[in-house]
Amino acid sequence: MDKEQLIACHERIKPFIHNTPVLTSQLLDEMTGAQLFFKCENFQKMGAFKMRGGVNAIMQLSDEARRKGVVTHSSGNFAQAVSLAAKSLGVPAYIVMPSNAPRVKKEAVKGYGGKVIECEPTLEAREKAAKKIVDEKGATFLHPSNDLDVILGQGTACKELLEAYPDLDYVIAPVGGGGLIAGTALSAFFFGKDCKVIGGEPFEVDDAYRSLQSGKIETNITTNTIADGLKTQLGDKNFPIIQKHVEQIIRVTEDEIIAAMRLLWERLKIVCEPSCAVAFAAVQKEKELFRNKKVGIIISGGNVDLGNLPF
Amino acid sequence: MDKEQLIACHERIKPFIHNTPVLTSQLLDEMTGAQLFFKCENFQKMGAFKMRGGVNAIMQLSDEARRKGVVTHSSGNFAQAVSLAAKSLGVPAYIVMPSNAPRVKKEAVKGYGGKVIECEPTLEAREKAAKKIVDEKGATFLHPSNDLDVILGQGTACKELLEAYPDLDYVIAPVGGGGLIAGTALSAFFFGKDCKVIGGEPFEVDDAYRSLQSGKIETNITTNTIADGLKTQLGDKNFPIIQKHVEQIIRVTEDEIIAAMRLLWERLKIVCEPSCAVAFAAVQKEKELFRNKKVGIIISGGNVDLGNLPF
Repeated sequence: MDKEQLIACHERIKPFIHNTPVLTSQLLDEMTGAQLFFKCENFQKMGAFKMRGGVNAIMQLSDEARRKGVVTHSSGNFAQAVSLAAKSLGVPAYIVMPSNAPRVKKEAVKGYGGKVIECEPTLEAREKAAKKIVDEKGATFLHPSNDLDVILGQGTACKELLEAYPDLDYVIAPVGGGGLIAGTALSAFFFGKDCKVIGGEPFEVDDAYRSLQSGKIETNITTNTIADGLKTQLGDKNFPIIQKHVEQIIRVTEDEIIAAMRLLWERLKIVCEPSCAVAFAAVQKEKELFRNKKVGIIISGGNVDLGNLPF
Repeated sequence: MDKEQLIACHERIKPFIHNTPVLTSQLLDEMTGAQLFFKCENFQKMGAFKMRGGVNAIMQLSDEARRKGVVTHSSGNFAQAVSLAAKSLGVPAYIVMPSNAPRVKKEAVKGYGGKVIECEPTLEAREKAAKKIVDEKGATFLHPSNDLDVILGQGTACKELLEAYPDLDYVIAPVGGGGLIAGTALSAFFFGKDCKVIGGEPFEVDDAYRSLQSGKIETNITTNTIADGLKTQLGDKNFPIIQKHVEQIIRVTEDEIIAAMRLLWERLKIVCEPSCAVAFAAVQKEKELFRNKKVGIIISGGNVDLGNLPF
C-alpha cells in the first residue's frame, strides 16, 4: 500500500464521513506532562471510526457487487458501520447477529437500514449464516479489520489528525482486530514527520502484544475485559503492517482503563467507550516516554450503554 | 450596546477561550424535523460558557483594580470561571461559597487558583462575606449574569456559531440568570440574518417566562428542577435586552429535560448538564415551529457529577 492509495481513499469517503473535531485539555496535559490531542471518532457518523473503513470497502466494489449487497457478522460497531455505509451508498446490507445480542444493538442496525439475520451465538453458526447469504444472494463478505480497504479507511482518522497537527511525536490507538492500529500506522508513516505509532491493549486480551513478541498471530484464551471492542485478534493482512510500523504496545489493567475512562468523561466532557480509554490509559502509564511530547490519541467510539457504566 | 463592542469583546477574550466545535447529528435532525447545530460550550475551558464572560469582565478592569482582585459568590460554574479567568490574567480571585457546598466544587475552584471563603449557606451570609472582601481587599465584585461585560462575553458563543453557520433561522439557549440568553440575543441581532432567539426554561423555575408576560422581573418561590444552573432570576441589566430581542420562552417539564439530556449523551456522545438539555427539549417540544429550520442550540456546560446521573 502506498501514500497515493490512502489519499485516494480519503477523497473517496469524504462525502460520507465527518472530519471529526480534535479536543485538547490543559488539565489532562498537566496531569500527564504531555501535550495531548484527542481525535474524537466518537463523534463520527454511527459513533465510531468503523464508518470510515465500511464506506471505503463498499465503495471499492463493482456496480454489480454493490447491487447484490454486503454481509458481515458482528454485534458491535462494524455492524452499524456497514449498515449505515451501505444505506448511504444505496447498497443492501445483511448483518448476521447472535440471537442473544442485546435488543438495543439489533435495533440500532435496523435503524441504519441493515437487515438482521439471527443465528446461534457461536462463531461457527455466525460464519455459516454469513456464508449462506454470500451463496444465496451473491453478497460480498466484509471483514471488520482484516481487509486492506477497511484498513485504509480507518487510517484516514490519523490522516486528518496529522493534517490539523502535523508535528505530532506519537499517535496512540487501541488495538483490537488490528484494522485501526494498522491504518493509523500507515497514515503516520506516510503523513507524519517521524511520528511514532503506539498501541494500547488491555492485559486481559494482550494477543497483539504477544504477537509482536512471538512474530506470529496469537489468540486470547479468555477475554475478561471491559474494553469489549478489543477482544478480537489480529489478521494476516494487518499483522505485517503492525509488525513493520508500530513502535510498541503498552498494556493496561482493567482498573487503569476504568479510571482513564472516567477522566475522559469528566474532563474532556465526552461520552466514549472503554476501548478509547485504553489508549489514554497507556499515556498515563508511561508518563516518562511521553513527557513534553505532542501525542495524538484516537478516541475510537462512543457507543456505550448509559445504563451500565463502570462508575 | 452596539455591534462594535461585541466584536471588540470577542477579539479581547480570544486568547483565553476555545472556539468550541459545533456538532451535528443526522439522527437528531430526523427525530426533530429540523437541522440542528449544537455549539458545544461544554468543551469550553473549565467546562462552560461562563469562562467567556468571566474573562471579559476581568479584562475590562483597570490595572489597579486587577491588582486588588475580584470576588464573587457562587457554588456553580461562575465560581470556576472567575477562578480560571483570573488565574489566566494574573489576578487574585476570592470565591465566597456556602459551607455546605460539595467538596468537589470547592476543590475545583481551588484547582483553578481561586481562594475559597466559606460562609453560612444563606444568601445574606454570602452577600455579607463578599462585601467584606470588597471592603477589606478593595476587590471588584463580579455578578454572574447581571453585568454588561459578562453579557457581552457570553454572547461570543453565538457569534462564533453564526460565523460558522451564518444563515441560522433560530438560536436557542437556556435561561437562568439571563446573561447567556441576553448575550446570545445581542449576537443574533448584530450578526444573524433575521435570526430569532428563543429561550428554554424549566416549568419549575419559569420566572423569565413570567417576567416577559408581566413586564417586570419575577422570582421563583420554589426551585425544584434538575437544571441546577437555571434557578436564578433575571436582573435589571439583562432583562431589557431579553425583552427587546428574545422572541419567546418555551417551557419544558423535568421528564422532558431528563429524556433530552439522555438523547444528547447517547446520540451526540457528549457529557452535558441538565441545563443544556432544556434548550434541546424546547426544540423537541415545539417541533412544528422548527420544522425544516436551521436551529442553533447553545450547549451551555458539562460540569456534572457522574456519580449522580438521572438515568
